[in-house]
Amino acid sequence: MAESWPFLDTFEPDFRPLVVIELAKGTKEETIEWFTKRIVDKKANGGEYNMIFCAQLLVKPLVTESGDEHIYLIGASHLRLLLGAETVGLVKECSDNSMRTFTYSSRKTFKDFADDNHNFLTMAECQYIIKHELENLRAKDEKMIPGYPQAKLYPGKSIVRRLLTSGILVQIFPLHDREELKKLRHSWYGRVKVGYQPLDEIRCYFGETIALYFGFLEYFTFALIPMAVIGIPYYVFAWEDYDKYVMFATFNLLWSTVILEVWKRICAIMTYRWGTLLMKRQFEEPRPGFHGVLGINPVTGREEPVYSSIKRQIRIYLVSLPFVCLCLYFSLYVMMIYFDLEQWALDYHEANESNFSSLMLFVPSIIYAIVIEIMNRIYRYAAEFLTSWENHRLESSYQNHLILKVLVFNFLNCFASLFYIAFVLFDMKLLRQSLATLLITSQILNQFAESLLPYWLQKRHKERMKKRMCSLKTDTDLSLVEQVNLEKEMGTYFGTFDDYLELFLQFGYVSLFSCVYPLAAVFAVLNNITEIYSDALKMCRVYKRPFAEPTANIGVWQLAFETMSVISVVTNCILIGMSPQVNALFTDSKTDLILTVALVEHLLLAIKFIMAFVIPDKPRDIQIKLAKLEFESLEALKQQVRATDVYNSEK
Amino acid sequence: MAESWPFLDTFEPDFRPLVVIELAKGTKEETIEWFTKRIVDKKANGGEYNMIFCAQLLVKPLVTESGDEHIYLIGASHLRLLLGAETVGLVKECSDNSMRTFTYSSRKTFKDFADDNHNFLTMAECQYIIKHELENLRAKDEKMIPGYPQAKLYPGKSIVRRLLTSGILVQIFPLHDREELKKLRHSWYGRVKVGYQPLDEIRCYFGETIALYFGFLEYFTFALIPMAVIGIPYYVFAWEDYDKYVMFATFNLLWSTVILEVWKRICAIMTYRWGTLLMKRQFEEPRPGFHGVLGINPVTGREEPVYSSIKRQIRIYLVSLPFVCLCLYFSLYVMMIYFDLEQWALDYHEANESNFSSLMLFVPSIIYAIVIEIMNRIYRYAAEFLTSWENHRLESSYQNHLILKVLVFNFLNCFASLFYIAFVLFDMKLLRQSLATLLITSQILNQFAESLLPYWLQKRHKERMKKRMCSLKTDTDLSLVEQVNLEKEMGTYFGTFDDYLELFLQFGYVSLFSCVYPLAAVFAVLNNITEIYSDALKMCRVYKRPFAEPTANIGVWQLAFETMSVISVVTNCILIGMSPQVNALFTDSKTDLILTVALVEHLLLAIKFIMAFVIPDKPRDIQIKLAKLEFESLEALKQQVRATDVYNSEK
Repeated sequence: MAESWPFLDTFEPDFRPLVVIELAKGTKEETIEWFTKRIVDKKANGGEYNMIFCAQLLVKPLVTESGDEHIYLIGASHLRLLLGAETVGLVKECSDNSMRTFTYSSRKTFKDFADDNHNFLTMAECQYIIKHELENLRAKDEKMIPGYPQAKLYPGKSIVRRLLTSGILVQIFPLHDREELKKLRHSWYGRVKVGYQPLDEIRCYFGETIALYFGFLEYFTFALIPMAVIGIPYYVFAWEDYDKYVMFATFNLLWSTVILEVWKRICAIMTYRWGTLLMKRQFEEPRPGFHGVLGINPVTGREEPVYSSIKRQIRIYLVSLPFVCLCLYFSLYVMMIYFDLEQWALDYHEANESNFSSLMLFVPSIIYAIVIEIMNRIYRYAAEFLTSWENHRLESSYQNHLILKVLVFNFLNCFASLFYIAFVLFDMKLLRQSLATLLITSQILNQFAESLLPYWLQKRHKERMKKRMCSLKTDTDLSLVEQVNLEKEMGTYFGTFDDYLELFLQFGYVSLFSCVYPLAAVFAVLNNITEIYSDALKMCRVYKRPFAEPTANIGVWQLAFETMSVISVVTNCILIGMSPQVNALFTDSKTDLILTVALVEHLLLAIKFIMAFVIPDKPRDIQIKLAKLEFESLEALKQQVRATDVYNSEK
Repeated sequence: MAESWPFLDTFEPDFRPLVVIELAKGTKEETIEWFTKRIVDKKANGGEYNMIFCAQLLVKPLVTESGDEHIYLIGASHLRLLLGAETVGLVKECSDNSMRTFTYSSRKTFKDFADDNHNFLTMAECQYIIKHELENLRAKDEKMIPGYPQAKLYPGKSIVRRLLTSGILVQIFPLHDREELKKLRHSWYGRVKVGYQPLDEIRCYFGETIALYFGFLEYFTFALIPMAVIGIPYYVFAWEDYDKYVMFATFNLLWSTVILEVWKRICAIMTYRWGTLLMKRQFEEPRPGFHGVLGINPVTGREEPVYSSIKRQIRIYLVSLPFVCLCLYFSLYVMMIYFDLEQWALDYHEANESNFSSLMLFVPSIIYAIVIEIMNRIYRYAAEFLTSWENHRLESSYQNHLILKVLVFNFLNCFASLFYIAFVLFDMKLLRQSLATLLITSQILNQFAESLLPYWLQKRHKERMKKRMCSLKTDTDLSLVEQVNLEKEMGTYFGTFDDYLELFLQFGYVSLFSCVYPLAAVFAVLNNITEIYSDALKMCRVYKRPFAEPTANIGVWQLAFETMSVISVVTNCILIGMSPQVNALFTDSKTDLILTVALVEHLLLAIKFIMAFVIPDKPRDIQIKLAKLEFESLEALKQQVRATDVYNSEK
């Protein structure tokens, strides 16, 4: 295809800025010239390995008032974007309502396609295409970045990644579309209404990864409602009957399995409609931070940095693993201090009983909850540093190691005290109180730290900015320059990791000890309803617009939630076995009690696994659609082979 | 491709028979003429859906002495076979030692390829290709098979499948290659030697499915040796120490996880070398026995029989499920009779103690073992009948339902009595005795019924045949006619199902109660060594040569073995907890004992799952090779798109 592009005129007079590039102050002229030339130049045959050396995009410098800033707006012609959509393998809906991989030659068969319809690709898709093209812009025969001899290049190295790691390129970010954003804000959280989120609009604006997070948040909230509704009477009527607790716990355990399985189906329906379920996985390039000595990649045969796997293993097992263990030990140590505090508060309350002293009983839990949050955040930075120091070649491998580190620590940090109270101290009252305090405190802290604080900071910054602008010009309407200046100062959204983590911990609070504190689900539902709004606010108002990222599922989080639900079967069975009501039933033999509990636990686990096995991951109609596409592609392959043969035999 | 075939001359003077077709006696001439014409005629453009209406193979009638038999030999020209190898998607080794999908146009790049080298494709591959072409020979516009108005056809229906179901076609089977078979027999079991089986030669002769079974059998035997070696001293020195038993059981449990995980890696290495790891899954056609009313298949859009999924569900849940439950109940009923017998034998032994009476103690177990085997075999037929009556559309779905039915029943039938003895009667001595009797009896029965009896029958038949032949002609050398006549009377090998099932049950005997009877592994090893020889004998001497079937793994059996190993963790933990040695350690509190056992069990299960997760399913070098191929195919796709674009733009 690249070869045919020079025939096509991909220049367009009306320039629409899509992505902003900010270069460091004082970047040399020759570097800027070389870089922009690379972005603008027409594509040529990529030679060996079909590499892209020129992106054929449009560049416009942004004239700022200070003048020493190098900010460039990147756009592309409509035709260039369509060709790019083919390169990244976008899947769009056809006129016959089937989903197909977009190709330029078959463009007429797609729904809503017209040569003058510039809305065929959403703005998020256009920005994703431009990001993909920029990131795949590769060095040809340069040994270094012109003007910066220390910034080494080798054939095939991504130019943008080298510019980023050597600090010449400060940031790349996509621009907001103020009109679209306003519409989205209105339908998302602008009016007070009960209903679903506009997931398709969110997807069009922010991309699939973020839309899927909000979809999961919404689904999870709805899924918690039955648990919350059933939980309320336990609190209101102070039910403490054995059979009611067992019923509630059993319902919870089966319900959590069902919701996780059904989520896979709903996820498949959504991502099929969005086209990402069908998108082929692209070949994964090394992550930007990866470094090593030049060698030959055994997979591609290209020259690129390689880093010995043994060295990495040594770093993981001799440094990261001990460090994580140390952190876990420290977390347990802090927990023991909390129990001392708790004891002290109890003693104080018993010594001088008053309203104040009974309030004081909650103080240790609240302090501990705050300390847990702080420790989680500090550990998060340490884990990121360590994982990046482990020097993983692929982003996916980096992410997996990071998530594993963070999950293990957060799980222990948040739940160790509860496990200790439940299974060492056997103090159900304290467990209930601790659980409630931890859950509610962490929810309040999170909402505050994640959305409200940044929103307030952002608002203050914006007002100051506006004042400064107003002092320069009288025109209060935000021009493009102002918009770019405003957005480039906004915080960067680092992906859905923290949001999923929060939900994961919440799921733990709700399910691990559900039979002791049925009200947890109620608080989780209330929190999630506000969470939807505060997260929406965060996305629209606080952070820079993130690049869209196509994805077909929530990835490793599905596994994490499923693991949590297995652990909660074990904990709930033990808790029920320990309850005085159950013990009263087995007065003559404690052995029988334990055997019964073990049997029930094994049965529940077996049912869980069988349910997970029996419920299909994709609904039947999606299965049929996928089978149909596979069949068609097999048929097309045969036709193509035949056509090539005819072509060859005619030669 | 089909279009280009008429240009190529695919006729060859030297005819090599590969596959035999036997038509029913008294088949009408017009049917035979129509069918052979279809097989022989040159390929033409398949029109819509790219269907094959003519196979362009070679046919030769076999002249028999009686004359009323319609036996045809099918062959194909070398060129035709190469084109067929491309159609079925064979993967062969290239000159640069990489594995690639064979295409006719790139044939020169493959290792050992030469236009006159007729051994480039193995005979098994040639036969697989011919089978594939015959099965995909489809009806064009015939409404019925000529001469048989009741045998309905519709466009796209496989002709061979209709001929088979209407009884006109008696059988299709591939011919043995007497020279090759002799060589294989010699290197496989002809000489007394210790060493590995010639798996590559087996694969060349019998195909991947059978070679993989023998590979698994060999691997499994080697994997059992450590367990057997560790088990012997327990028997010899009559060790009954607590710690030794726990060590043995723990070793067994972790070992069984390790061997199952490592098998996946070894399997990947083997099937990569054989090319099947890379073979693309072909689109699955309805199985021969499937029937229904004509409708539109939602996946292919073709007209074909459809059968309502609800009707099938009703058959499964309202007929099959109750039937299976009834069989399970009957099996338990037989078990209770066995216990009565056992009691009677014990009473008899106590009443008049003698050598005879102590021998009598074993009789009930032996009778029960024989009854179990008979019930398993009868149930197998019932399960096959029921599953085929459920009318599954795809062979894979049929197989899954059949395997599930058979596994559940066989598991209960074989192990219910052992579970009853262990966990209801708490009689460890009886458990040991029962386990030994069941294991050894079933092994002897299996070896006899599976290989030796058919071998003896086959030998007798062959001698009678030879005598008859000798009376006709004086030439004792087996001619082609005789070979075909001999082979068509041989039994049909119905696939590896029964062989895997036998190994699965053996694995159950070895692992479920391993800490009670460590000697089980020894018997399993001894059995498997003779099993290799008797199965080899069976394949080479007793049965018709089976068609080769490419496969990349042992499929659902991997899951079955893994499930068994999870169940065995539970049973072994309970058994250890019940042993008097362990009970002696926890004299003061039975509760502590049970809690400890439960804790250990959960820890072992957790370790198992983590191990299964951590050990990669494919070795690193295979991963790199696969990644390399994927990378190359992505690059090739880009090149191809580009080439097509150039071609289009030149037009």
